[in-house]
Amino acid sequence: MPSNAVNPDLQREREKASFNTQEFTYWWLGGKEKYEAKKKLEKLFLDDPELKDELPISYMSPKELYEHSVRKAVIIAKKLRELRADGEDDVDTYTALFGGALGSALIKEGNPMMLHFVMFVPTILGQGTVEQQIEWLTKAWNCNILGTYAQTELGHGTFLRGLETRAEYDATTQEFVLNTPTISAYKWWPGGMGHTANHAIVVAQLYTKGVFRGLAPFIVQLRDLETHMPMLGIDVGDIGPKIGMKSVNNGYLGLKNVRVPLNNMLMKNQQVLPDGTYVAPKNSVLTYGTMMFVRVALIRDLSQTLAKASTIAMRYSAVRRQSPIDPNKPEPQIIEHTTQQLKVFPQIAKAIIFKITGEHIWNMFNNVSGELEQGNMDRLPEMHALSCCLKAITSADSAAAVEVCRLSCGGHGYMDCSNFPTIYGMTTAVCTYEGENTVMLLQTARYLVKVYAQALSGEPLVPTVQYISDYIKNREFGAFDCTLEQIVHAFQFVAAK
Amino acid sequence: MPSNAVNPDLQREREKASFNTQEFTYWWLGGKEKYEAKKKLEKLFLDDPELKDELPISYMSPKELYEHSVRKAVIIAKKLRELRADGEDDVDTYTALFGGALGSALIKEGNPMMLHFVMFVPTILGQGTVEQQIEWLTKAWNCNILGTYAQTELGHGTFLRGLETRAEYDATTQEFVLNTPTISAYKWWPGGMGHTANHAIVVAQLYTKGVFRGLAPFIVQLRDLETHMPMLGIDVGDIGPKIGMKSVNNGYLGLKNVRVPLNNMLMKNQQVLPDGTYVAPKNSVLTYGTMMFVRVALIRDLSQTLAKASTIAMRYSAVRRQSPIDPNKPEPQIIEHTTQQLKVFPQIAKAIIFKITGEHIWNMFNNVSGELEQGNMDRLPEMHALSCCLKAITSADSAAAVEVCRLSCGGHGYMDCSNFPTIYGMTTAVCTYEGENTVMLLQTARYLVKVYAQALSGEPLVPTVQYISDYIKNREFGAFDCTLEQIVHAFQFVAAK
Repeated sequence: MPSNAVNPDLQREREKASFNTQEFTYWWLGGKEKYEAKKKLEKLFLDDPELKDELPISYMSPKELYEHSVRKAVIIAKKLRELRADGEDDVDTYTALFGGALGSALIKEGNPMMLHFVMFVPTILGQGTVEQQIEWLTKAWNCNILGTYAQTELGHGTFLRGLETRAEYDATTQEFVLNTPTISAYKWWPGGMGHTANHAIVVAQLYTKGVFRGLAPFIVQLRDLETHMPMLGIDVGDIGPKIGMKSVNNGYLGLKNVRVPLNNMLMKNQQVLPDGTYVAPKNSVLTYGTMMFVRVALIRDLSQTLAKASTIAMRYSAVRRQSPIDPNKPEPQIIEHTTQQLKVFPQIAKAIIFKITGEHIWNMFNNVSGELEQGNMDRLPEMHALSCCLKAITSADSAAAVEVCRLSCGGHGYMDCSNFPTIYGMTTAVCTYEGENTVMLLQTARYLVKVYAQALSGEPLVPTVQYISDYIKNREFGAFDCTLEQIVHAFQFVAAK
Repeated sequence: MPSNAVNPDLQREREKASFNTQEFTYWWLGGKEKYEAKKKLEKLFLDDPELKDELPISYMSPKELYEHSVRKAVIIAKKLRELRADGEDDVDTYTALFGGALGSALIKEGNPMMLHFVMFVPTILGQGTVEQQIEWLTKAWNCNILGTYAQTELGHGTFLRGLETRAEYDATTQEFVLNTPTISAYKWWPGGMGHTANHAIVVAQLYTKGVFRGLAPFIVQLRDLETHMPMLGIDVGDIGPKIGMKSVNNGYLGLKNVRVPLNNMLMKNQQVLPDGTYVAPKNSVLTYGTMMFVRVALIRDLSQTLAKASTIAMRYSAVRRQSPIDPNKPEPQIIEHTTQQLKVFPQIAKAIIFKITGEHIWNMFNNVSGELEQGNMDRLPEMHALSCCLKAITSADSAAAVEVCRLSCGGHGYMDCSNFPTIYGMTTAVCTYEGENTVMLLQTARYLVKVYAQALSGEPLVPTVQYISDYIKNREFGAFDCTLEQIVHAFQFVAAK
């Protein structure tokens, strides 16, 4: 069989499909137009010989892998700049290039410049004033500066109030003085901080006039733009090897009396005036926006990742033959074994369910964001609870599903060349970052307890939790007739009960 | 705090222990004598400066890691030879040096010479005649030859009848001719085969006088003893990077008309006479012995691995402080959080349960082996079913438990320096090798269906499944009084039902 021929077992399975696969593809991607845009983008990047790996990256040391990945990241950034100059980039371009599909195909273990595009630029957009956006965004889009986002510390992650990095305003010089006073205050994990970025948005506890004001974001220069050496007072480096995301270049950051100008604090939501007067945000919940956005984006991306894992397992199950079912017949494709079907099929189903869920919450997020812009906060708690809950559920279930897929490929799934080890490393990380799953579930529980009390006192509930009111009004389930509506009703009934 | 000081939170937890930890240690290890032998062995190996890592292995490329590991493996083998010369080695020595405790401490990602000691030598002992043992074992114990065990192929693993490697006897030269006729017949996975071993026990389908006789083991020389280059007809190399066991040096092997003398077939259980006459084994189940031994050894070792993982998680939970429970008090050790207790405590309990289970089945295996030597096969099916079942359950549960422990350490568990990535790689592999877990559970199910039928027809059952007879005789559970006996009875009742 020539190396580019399709395995005949696989070809036969494809021909047997009982549905129109092209139609399914359009649905998955959101229409024919999106499909064609995707193909065009993939051609632009995947056909570039400079972006191909000559040696599988598994054979590299961490240092070699970083150098290899940052070289490719620079090529990708150049192409992105060209697309942007031609007005051919949109949100789908960035979602694709830094997500689990095209992004992972280009740099398997994660792009060391990812946080520049998915956190540094969006945070300036979301939290900078118009003047600050003009000042920083041009440089950032052109990659004249390369940024990352430094919030989590060695000592504190999801529990934000525990962060120890301090920014004290010095009105005499109109500067903030930033410090990480203890070892546990060191920033820990920012992608690209290890060796790549020369700037960071540093989240710190703000003090002005000696009074504590809460968390605020500051743009801090980490490295000299010419020599790439750390600036005075900056202690920066790589945190070391990890299960996955091996080329994301996660770093640490210590700050010792690092001074930044007043204008380096992002001031869209809260302000410090030159004399040190603090102007609090009109609504502190506005800072939820970025967190919700990232969680919603993660939920969408997980369906893509799980689709990839279950496709690998399904293809393997079609081409691998093992253990006769009927001793008089040749060994069947392993997908003929019931035990194999029970492993692989539910993971395919989950990928599709998470896809529908992801699109639903993506649309809801866009609606709620629009309402927020107009000062309407009504659906914010619902949106927050739903994004917490689904981030936890989809990440935990996807990580478990990837392992089921991997184990369904026997020993071959254990090898790096199956791609499962990389996919698992990427997926299980989502259980921890952007809000640790246990905390996310506790937030969901807190919301549910609150709305349950509202329902008991007869208050109307938002659509997502309407089923609780329904249950309280009518505690009898009635007859079950196995229709789809009844199955949904049964889940709601059990959940409310 | 000096780097060798114990964290005060950890010290306080240790002092609060409500039981005698020394007594527990003796129990875990099987008595004070075993404890002292363990300490002595650890001192001999862990204090050797040549066996320490100057650079964490996570920073190495696969090639560097292999060279580093094989250098250490040679030092370990030399020390083992000295112990053996002084009569100071026993089964515990090898269990320790190639297991999840001392073995993993010395070569974290697996000893490339492990299969020489745990498969090559034991197979010659178990399946070689006395003459063959004399011929091969002296060389093997002295490491004048280095072996591995080649059974699994690219195309077939757990389903042994599907193996394709052929050994045809040529009576004219009194040699076997070995071939891997297809790409899927290539041996795949043998540890140390990549670049380390110069011999292998190759399991092949035996043909004499043109008649198929079943599987048989052959000693095959892979590489020249002086140049280490592959012998004529041998195609051998490394299969590539994997999730874990990264320095085990798993390899592939193709054979093209490789000739070995008649006496290279291990002939304790079955024989080929010079004219090609085949003498079948007296009892084909005797070949189960090695498989059962390995599974029992794995079950014992998994308790050790899980104890290690849960110890790391427990220590982290004692020293990490996060998120106040009472807002007026400082952040507590995270083990004070109920959610953290629910993650870590059950894994500690499982490690202890698997320890008791492992010792139980180890003793049972030794008894049954003694009975087998005397021709008594009565308990073989029970022993086989129990070792299959427990291999599957303990490996799947341990792998899941390691991940619970890892995730309970938040982002820090994701880093290689937590040691969780290595432990998970080692543990999840056990789900697949030495009998894929799904197949193991199907074997268990087959046994249970068989004994259930026996119980229904009134035949007496062996102790392990006696509870099925009890249930059939008395299908009423009766009152439940929550004693330990009643809890065991309840599990048995539910299982039988």
